[in-house]
Amino acid sequence: MVGKAISVNKALDKAVALKHPEKIHEAMRYSLLAGGKRVRPILCIAACELVGGDESAAMAAACSVEMIHTMSLIHDDLPCMDNDDLRRGKPTNHKVFGEDVAVLAGDSLLSFAFEHLATATPLGQVSPGQVVRAVGELARVIGAEGLVAGQVVDIDSEGAADVGLEQLEFIHIHKTGAIVGGGTDEEVEKLRKFAIGIGLLFQVVDDILDVTKSSEELGKTAGKDLVADKVTFPKLMGIEKSREYAERLVKAAKDQLVGFDQEKAKPLIALVDYIAYRQN
Amino acid sequence: MVGKAISVNKALDKAVALKHPEKIHEAMRYSLLAGGKRVRPILCIAACELVGGDESAAMAAACSVEMIHTMSLIHDDLPCMDNDDLRRGKPTNHKVFGEDVAVLAGDSLLSFAFEHLATATPLGQVSPGQVVRAVGELARVIGAEGLVAGQVVDIDSEGAADVGLEQLEFIHIHKTGAIVGGGTDEEVEKLRKFAIGIGLLFQVVDDILDVTKSSEELGKTAGKDLVADKVTFPKLMGIEKSREYAERLVKAAKDQLVGFDQEKAKPLIALVDYIAYRQN
Repeated sequence: MVGKAISVNKALDKAVALKHPEKIHEAMRYSLLAGGKRVRPILCIAACELVGGDESAAMAAACSVEMIHTMSLIHDDLPCMDNDDLRRGKPTNHKVFGEDVAVLAGDSLLSFAFEHLATATPLGQVSPGQVVRAVGELARVIGAEGLVAGQVVDIDSEGAADVGLEQLEFIHIHKTGAIVGGGTDEEVEKLRKFAIGIGLLFQVVDDILDVTKSSEELGKTAGKDLVADKVTFPKLMGIEKSREYAERLVKAAKDQLVGFDQEKAKPLIALVDYIAYRQN
Repeated sequence: MVGKAISVNKALDKAVALKHPEKIHEAMRYSLLAGGKRVRPILCIAACELVGGDESAAMAAACSVEMIHTMSLIHDDLPCMDNDDLRRGKPTNHKVFGEDVAVLAGDSLLSFAFEHLATATPLGQVSPGQVVRAVGELARVIGAEGLVAGQVVDIDSEGAADVGLEQLEFIHIHKTGAIVGGGTDEEVEKLRKFAIGIGLLFQVVDDILDVTKSSEELGKTAGKDLVADKVTFPKLMGIEKSREYAERLVKAAKDQLVGFDQEKAKPLIALVDYIAYRQN
């Protein structure tokens, strides 16, 4: 997993070079290269390898997914949204570059994600038709029925008394963006369920860490969810039940991988364990 | 031109339907269907027809271009950017829906533009390879080397004493987003120059109207550029010289259309005249 994260970091660094106008590229690079966990790109590459593709075929898509994730973090941290000062152990984008540049840096990471997917995917290995489908799927999971839908329902649910598990799952399934396409093919369907499962797992673990760790340990503001009056899994079911729920999600995710080449499934199993047992 | 604008409005209304979560779709539709001039989609369709294509082949791309334009207006109007209260004669998006929803509405229009381009372009008339190229080109003209580049240099130049015509042209060529791809084909090159020219023309006329018309006549806050200490063409060269400059841009744009089928060029000539001689 570490090897893959290093490849992703190199590819991201190369994809978003520092050019004119420097300020906006600097702002984009600041958040993109701030040392995230790279869970989404690693998932993207490992899923491609699982079904017989090469890392090189998936790298552009993997970088695009991370650019979009970074955009969502920059915009979520804005004063008008979560108003957060700390992210990945560093001041948030708008704290360093100002709100106006932070909005624009997010916008340009979002559009560059599609540019990169369309222009850097090796057309020898991936057909134009597959690229078009990937663009459509990626856009769908971001938009008003995906990531943004999750965020909007999240905003609406702040301070609300009647948020249940179903709505909380809706929020996080959409916010984490289940990136694998919804085809009818059995393998794609399993990978889709796998991705949704570990997305949810990621959030449950995040919520638990938010109430059990310090800001220093997390590299972001701890206890934030409580202050913001957000509905979280620990609030809804308590910490112990949340841990049990996480364990069930771990098992369910691994179950989706039965039937695949077990050697090739190893990186995905490692990814599940990493997400479940991480300390920040 | 009116006929094309009606078709575009119908297609936009259909593309962004009101669905769950309603608030975000409502916010997207509020700004998208607020009766803009539809200059960009009309240009997109007319350019396609000029080189022998059908309206139906270009409609998805035309709508995508307008979604992106709308996104840029919503984000530009935010308090942390131009802080504008009025747009197309109505309160701006964040005034109605709040800043958080306005940021998200912009993000989701941006991603939906790519989804729509990838999924609604008729693949019988347009090849997957052409769609991939269109996605790449469209993303390029938005990002940190396009629209966003113009916006960033614009923000930096506010209040600066040494902004010249060259920098002002850089800002507006990038902000208006010259949408036609930079291929080597002679026709594409002419259309690219045409689009850049009328983009610049649009801005020169906008700057003139800003100092000569009332807010009511414009449907947006007049005199705003003066207050914001923005560099404009009238400030740089005076109103009379700006009008002469606009006339030269009109002539240069029409010159690019010589050599095309003159019957098919008529909608583009009408578009130039509309942009040049509009009163708001």
